Amino acid sequence: MGIITIATDFGTADGYTAAMKGVIKSIAPDAELIDVTDDLSGVLKASIVLLRYYSHFPPGTVHLVVVDPTVGSGRRAVIGAGESLLFVGPDNGLFSHIMEDRPHSKWWSIETEKLPPRKISSTFHGRDIFAPAAALLASGRSPEELGEPIDDPCRFEIPRPKIEGNVITGQIIDIDKFGNLITNINQDMLTGKPSILLEEKEKIPLVDSFSNVPKDAPLAYIGSLGFLEIAVNLGRADSHFNAERGRKVIVKL
Amino acid sequence: MGIITIATDFGTADGYTAAMKGVIKSIAPDAELIDVTDDLSGVLKASIVLLRYYSHFPPGTVHLVVVDPTVGSGRRAVIGAGESLLFVGPDNGLFSHIMEDRPHSKWWSIETEKLPPRKISSTFHGRDIFAPAAALLASGRSPEELGEPIDDPCRFEIPRPKIEGNVITGQIIDIDKFGNLITNINQDMLTGKPSILLEEKEKIPLVDSFSNVPKDAPLAYIGSLGFLEIAVNLGRADSHFNAERGRKVIVKL
Amino acid sequence: MGIITIATDFGTADGYTAAMKGVIKSIAPDAELIDVTDDLSGVLKASIVLLRYYSHFPPGTVHLVVVDPTVGSGRRAVIGAGESLLFVGPDNGLFSHIMEDRPHSKWWSIETEKLPPRKISSTFHGRDIFAPAAALLASGRSPEELGEPIDDPCRFEIPRPKIEGNVITGQIIDIDKFGNLITNINQDMLTGKPSILLEEKEKIPLVDSFSNVPKDAPLAYIGSLGFLEIAVNLGRADSHFNAERGRKVIVKL
Repeated sequence: MGIITIATDFGTADGYTAAMKGVIKSIAPDAELIDVTDDLSGVLKASIVLLRYYSHFPPGTVHLVVVDPTVGSGRRAVIGAGESLLFVGPDNGLFSHIMEDRPHSKWWSIETEKLPPRKISSTFHGRDIFAPAAALLASGRSPEELGEPIDDPCRFEIPRPKIEGNVITGQIIDIDKFGNLITNINQDMLTGKPSILLEEKEKIPLVDSFSNVPKDAPLAYIGSLGFLEIAVNLGRADSHFNAERGRKVIVKL
Repeated sequence: MGIITIATDFGTADGYTAAMKGVIKSIAPDAELIDVTDDLSGVLKASIVLLRYYSHFPPGTVHLVVVDPTVGSGRRAVIGAGESLLFVGPDNGLFSHIMEDRPHSKWWSIETEKLPPRKISSTFHGRDIFAPAAALLASGRSPEELGEPIDDPCRFEIPRPKIEGNVITGQIIDIDKFGNLITNINQDMLTGKPSILLEEKEKIPLVDSFSNVPKDAPLAYIGSLGFLEIAVNLGRADSHFNAERGRKVIVKL
Repeated sequence: MGIITIATDFGTADGYTAAMKGVIKSIAPDAELIDVTDDLSGVLKASIVLLRYYSHFPPGTVHLVVVDPTVGSGRRAVIGAGESLLFVGPDNGLFSHIMEDRPHSKWWSIETEKLPPRKISSTFHGRDIFAPAAALLASGRSPEELGEPIDDPCRFEIPRPKIEGNVITGQIIDIDKFGNLITNINQDMLTGKPSILLEEKEKIPLVDSFSNVPKDAPLAYIGSLGFLEIAVNLGRADSHFNAERGRKVIVKL
């Protein structure tokens, strides 16, 4: 019996995620629930956050993700399968980074008539569609039993760095709780002793970790996702650089 | 061995709820702990939040709820049983909506001498009384073994809508994280093509879901609890309407 | 198979703690994960928060704590063992109160080559070192198998009250979510009918619990940790007294 991880933007204070947990435990009593977060902020951020944890879980894990601003519209509900890991959520771009990371993943549109009979609200598919689907998958049902294959799951374009000669132009794709700036520049792109610049202006030393520079000094390093990151030792890079998502990061090899 | 859900107003940063979890696992090693929230804001709100999740859990689930501003006073500690679900918490009105929803529920006052011997602090009954009681219930002990039956559990009056002719006057009873306004007007009360008004002023269209109106436009709909709700598509109804709990909502049938 | 409690300062919104959970479940599929918090604020606060919950868990429990501002520096990773409970985290003072509370605890420096082979990032030892170590301990591996014994784990000095004649001078060591002030004055030090003063100025009645004084009145009481605490009934003592950590509390016996 499998693990179901749960990530939402519901907060915890209203009991929405708890309702989903109850539905899951009623359908799949032996499923193990693992809380990820109820504080996702938007579909794009959620897509990146998934990258941080999904692949660390054992085969068969079902990753349930609900950030669903267009619930009740025509958007589909989807199941994805990529190398023995499963995904369930709204078809609104949430899984874009997963599709990038698992190019051979397959996707299905959930058919609600294949779920246990239940009145489906127009505003809470987390409880009424996604939780039952995740519970059934964790119980061993296959995606084929719950939906129809699709080849056009919603996927937003993921910004890729441009490489021109010995210059890589990437951007900040995420800012974490500590104010660290995560770029889309992969460690494999870096060779030799590159120069790191934030918008042509600030030259930042590339080092191993925070403590390689003095307190309050900026640094660049290979982050835990394998991307180039920019931080301030014992401080916040987002406020230090007044940085925001989308800002250019330039690497001169 | 049963599930214990845990909802408190302790926050997570101080370790109070973790102490409760330790006590439970020491008494009932096989109990499965399900986190609901540590961010309940007040007894009234907690009572409504319970409605969102309690009934979705399988029979035998113990719902442990601790919002306990009068801990250490004479207020009783209670166990409730309603159609195979169990409740544990302070007797301060927390379970008012449950009593409304499960009119045949039965209640007991916990007798601390029937719990495992333990020094009982005067300020943390969550750890010293409610957690042990929940652990024992999840282990199969009956409410009768832990307390004395009572017929006067604390219950605050739940506002009900007034129906006069073809006019229903209800009110906002909850505002969720998204700023959606939950009213006390049940879907069963609505017939035909009703007009929805917020304090006689704002006429709001009754539709199926958010996407039935343009972005930033208000809508009324049957929410996931079965009550009439008011929202703003991709926006916040609480700030749009400057709304607060208790404000009048009028339906003309 | 044991319990692993998890406490961090990662927040939940970025998925860092979820990555740790995935690593643990991949190494120790049967380990039971118990969330404590992702909102620890600093090493000192974390050390005190541990006191609130660690001892309530059953023997064999592994307490994993990650507040790690100097990750990637030379600071060691440690395992502690104290009377059948285990601790895993960075060697930065996090376990100072545990060492005080369990004077016979033993400590080991984790040797990463004794962990399952894995690329170790320079900034996320929670995922790459602490989670694997906790998983192995919960699977029954001993600290000796994972590290080398040390006799100098990092330990900051814990402020102790001064006792001069019949006057105890202590201080506020923690302020909780409710604004209650936790002092370092142990209940065993109090005899007779002591007078409690905050910085010589405010005399505060020592009572059993909140409701022994009127609403909005201050009180002193023995808190759930066994220390003298100061609160305001149905209010906040931190704002009432404009109090902060380190402020003097005087008891005249």
